Amino acid sequence: MRKINNDELSRLTVDDFKQADKMPLAVVLDHVRSSNNVGSVFRTSDALLIRKICLCGITATPPDKEIHKTALGAENTVDWEYFKTTEEAVESLRNEGYTVIAIEQVEGSISLDKYLPEPESKLALIFGNEVKGVQQKIVNQCDQTIEIPQFGTKHSFNIAVSAGIVLWDLSNKLRQQQLQFFC
Amino acid sequence: MRKINNDELSRLTVDDFKQADKMPLAVVLDHVRSSNNVGSVFRTSDALLIRKICLCGITATPPDKEIHKTALGAENTVDWEYFKTTEEAVESLRNEGYTVIAIEQVEGSISLDKYLPEPESKLALIFGNEVKGVQQKIVNQCDQTIEIPQFGTKHSFNIAVSAGIVLWDLSNKLRQQQLQFFC
Repeated sequence: MRKINNDELSRLTVDDFKQADKMPLAVVLDHVRSSNNVGSVFRTSDALLIRKICLCGITATPPDKEIHKTALGAENTVDWEYFKTTEEAVESLRNEGYTVIAIEQVEGSISLDKYLPEPESKLALIFGNEVKGVQQKIVNQCDQTIEIPQFGTKHSFNIAVSAGIVLWDLSNKLRQQQLQFFC
Repeated sequence: MRKINNDELSRLTVDDFKQADKMPLAVVLDHVRSSNNVGSVFRTSDALLIRKICLCGITATPPDKEIHKTALGAENTVDWEYFKTTEEAVESLRNEGYTVIAIEQVEGSISLDKYLPEPESKLALIFGNEVKGVQQKIVNQCDQTIEIPQFGTKHSFNIAVSAGIVLWDLSNKLRQQQLQFFC
């Protein structure tokens, strides 16, 4: 069981990435405080071919030393946009045909393990501030809410981990739908 | 769609957590450099009821200010052990009946989306150093290797994100197997 060297991984170049077909997934960061978390979301979004990231309110934007430290350059591959308010981001994404979904603990939310994307849908996933979560007024604007089920003592996941879990789970489900479509 | 307050989440107390049935999953950290990453793995492991964490080599151990900052107290709920070498941790876990699995990019590794745990198996999941990954000599000791498929320009996920993705995916599959067993 030989480990594969970085050179053998045949990863995309930045140009390849820009041209590549992306998953129909957008990420919205609603007032995320930590630039390290923002950078980490860029790195994950690069790996999973996420279409774009909307950085809202106090969320830091590239170029930023702290973002770079955890994004490792992925801030130059994944498309991003800045919005002064999260409301504007939601409105813009909805106009582009996205189903807008808050990742939040909400009455009546769908558990991530049970959530199945509509075939051929485009999903915009909103992750909230480290302390306050997704703002209630933004939750009110959403089409759906998804919750990652938790069984321990803590109230929430770290936001970069939460984004990793949700983006992995949904991009995996979408990829399997695409494979079924072509079979 | 009303957000649920922390008080309404009815999370476990530390005592409840200690008594609770855990998932048959152990985490092994093979010379992880960043205490922030270690703390984040504790926080995720608390949320997903992971049985224990083996901290190996240079990996920091609680009590530690940096671990606490990202674990938010989960270092006091999830069981952990320290091993001077990762070999010793692997040996100990194998004696306890765990199937030992490196999360690593390896020739012939199984893609996470295709991996199905054997029913009633106990899995020990090894995550490696931020730069070097899981050591080749540790990979050689493993029963299996799992890889998170990646499609972008970067060579790897952040280790805390990687642990979040793998622990979510496998604990979810194990929970569904348990539900089928009881139905």
